[in-house]
Amino acid sequence: MSQERTAIGQLGEFGLIEHLTKNIELKNASSIVGVGDDAAVIDHFGKQTVISTDLLLEGVHFDLMYTPLKHLGYKSVVVNLSDIYAMNATPTQILMSIGISNRFSVEAVAEFYEGVYAACEKYGVDLVGGDTTASQKGFIISVTAIGEVAPDKFVKRDGAQKGDLVCVSGDLGGAYVGLLFLEREKKIFLEAPGVQPDLEGESYVVGRLLKPEARKDIIEFLDDAEVRPTALMDISDGLSSEILHLCKQSNLGCVLYEEKLPIAEAMRNAAFKFEIDPTACALSGGEDYELLFTVSQADYEKLTLNEQISVVGYLTEPEQGTHIVTNGGSKHTITAQGWNHYKK
Amino acid sequence: MSQERTAIGQLGEFGLIEHLTKNIELKNASSIVGVGDDAAVIDHFGKQTVISTDLLLEGVHFDLMYTPLKHLGYKSVVVNLSDIYAMNATPTQILMSIGISNRFSVEAVAEFYEGVYAACEKYGVDLVGGDTTASQKGFIISVTAIGEVAPDKFVKRDGAQKGDLVCVSGDLGGAYVGLLFLEREKKIFLEAPGVQPDLEGESYVVGRLLKPEARKDIIEFLDDAEVRPTALMDISDGLSSEILHLCKQSNLGCVLYEEKLPIAEAMRNAAFKFEIDPTACALSGGEDYELLFTVSQADYEKLTLNEQISVVGYLTEPEQGTHIVTNGGSKHTITAQGWNHYKK
Repeated sequence: MSQERTAIGQLGEFGLIEHLTKNIELKNASSIVGVGDDAAVIDHFGKQTVISTDLLLEGVHFDLMYTPLKHLGYKSVVVNLSDIYAMNATPTQILMSIGISNRFSVEAVAEFYEGVYAACEKYGVDLVGGDTTASQKGFIISVTAIGEVAPDKFVKRDGAQKGDLVCVSGDLGGAYVGLLFLEREKKIFLEAPGVQPDLEGESYVVGRLLKPEARKDIIEFLDDAEVRPTALMDISDGLSSEILHLCKQSNLGCVLYEEKLPIAEAMRNAAFKFEIDPTACALSGGEDYELLFTVSQADYEKLTLNEQISVVGYLTEPEQGTHIVTNGGSKHTITAQGWNHYKK
Repeated sequence: MSQERTAIGQLGEFGLIEHLTKNIELKNASSIVGVGDDAAVIDHFGKQTVISTDLLLEGVHFDLMYTPLKHLGYKSVVVNLSDIYAMNATPTQILMSIGISNRFSVEAVAEFYEGVYAACEKYGVDLVGGDTTASQKGFIISVTAIGEVAPDKFVKRDGAQKGDLVCVSGDLGGAYVGLLFLEREKKIFLEAPGVQPDLEGESYVVGRLLKPEARKDIIEFLDDAEVRPTALMDISDGLSSEILHLCKQSNLGCVLYEEKLPIAEAMRNAAFKFEIDPTACALSGGEDYELLFTVSQADYEKLTLNEQISVVGYLTEPEQGTHIVTNGGSKHTITAQGWNHYKK
């Protein structure tokens, strides 16, 4: 055995994944897309199967002190479906595995599944398998989502071209500010358990965190409008982090504009209460599960028909780097400040 | 929220799964088989996709004190592939998610993946995705395996017929006795850390636990011999538990014969050292990952060509119950004594 010891924090999550998967060689002709995108694509003659998986751990990805189990079940499914839509595919099935300790009752687990089934119902997917096991401590959730797509219609992260427009669905940063509120109220509650949580007026941002939706509507709109994105992914770690992935995989640079970032009024107001910059929340806040995609400039007119789509910048030669132009006109290099579990 | 509180232990694992999944209605025409068998089957025009998932937790499913990480990686894959073979399908891809705490080094995780890739290589499957996340405590493994099968060639657990022969591959009980040895040596080590483990002569049973294989060869043999099993599953929880599942799902009874149970000489010797009954180990010991299947009596001659297949009994009308005939000629009702995580 090797005597080396590299701390996981030195590599970070993405570095670790790269380290562990760099030597993979796909052997089956049916493995069209493997590790490195939102989901894998598997060819099954006629349609292609798209599959994605997520592991969610109590204390790392969610806090049961302020996350109702039903919402947790719903969100666990939605974040996986978001990965399937992010391939331009239609989710069709999920597998759900959970590890639970004896501190949970059957009713509590059933509540979690109520949320799972609500999401399945809403998105028209079937739960077709999974695994249930005891855990010594903590609630563990593993979801695998499967989808289908017509041959070669899937969209990866590496197809963007110089000059393409950078687009974002919905609005950004809400889930992050919602998390700040819930963490503040948790702290107050722990210090003085009698105090009721004060979330008045914050239902929008709290809802963004606790009950996100996958942007099925955007995928359907693009399909109806005959707009094929050149690159497509979902925003789980924050726009900064994701656009850097997209630029790296497409080997391009980018210019984004602060004034174009979609920010909801409720998020802006909430951010002010915390004395933090709404732009920073929109750039670095994770868990909004909006879509980030690029389109040819020729498609610009078509996009203006959908007010849920914002064009936030464009792609450049890689040598020009990755920048954001602020409202004041100055230019800053974009840095990834997404959530890195290992750097705590 | 409901005020009821049913402890999970009251239902047990299978009761809980049934409780949570009983209301599922499959909505997509492509969902051929959902929850309730070894794997789900998804139709994709021409071939059918088979998919299965497992969640493995440190302290519940494995003990890192005596499980080398490379073996753990290998086994994590193999136990999932076993589920795919148990549908009479060929595994083609896997997704691997892990949750790891900071106590693991990059090298340790890489060792785990060495085992994962060794299994992928041996069985010809591609690792096409997954998720890697920090855990607060413990090592968490979630594997999803995907396979393919020609339309309607998959074999479920519910197709057995009265009079069919009950068959088992390989030999049974070894993994359980291997576990007893490793647990004994761990206890001795914890009491006197200087003492070296005494596993001499027990490499067979210890190997059965730490490095199981999926019975790809049996599936290939049956295919070559043109024997289509009427029901098929893998033995992860012990023969008693699995034959009861098979009988329940096929609505039949069974008679097994103690003298027909495949028991390796090394397992028998090891069991004697612990003063336990080898037959009990073969019936109730889990984790052998052999196959349990039923075939029409007309196929009996063909099976005799493969010494890795034992005919251990036959299926009866459900009213006749589920029995085993001992070497002494007495008849006992089979009871499930598989591993139940919740009843500890």
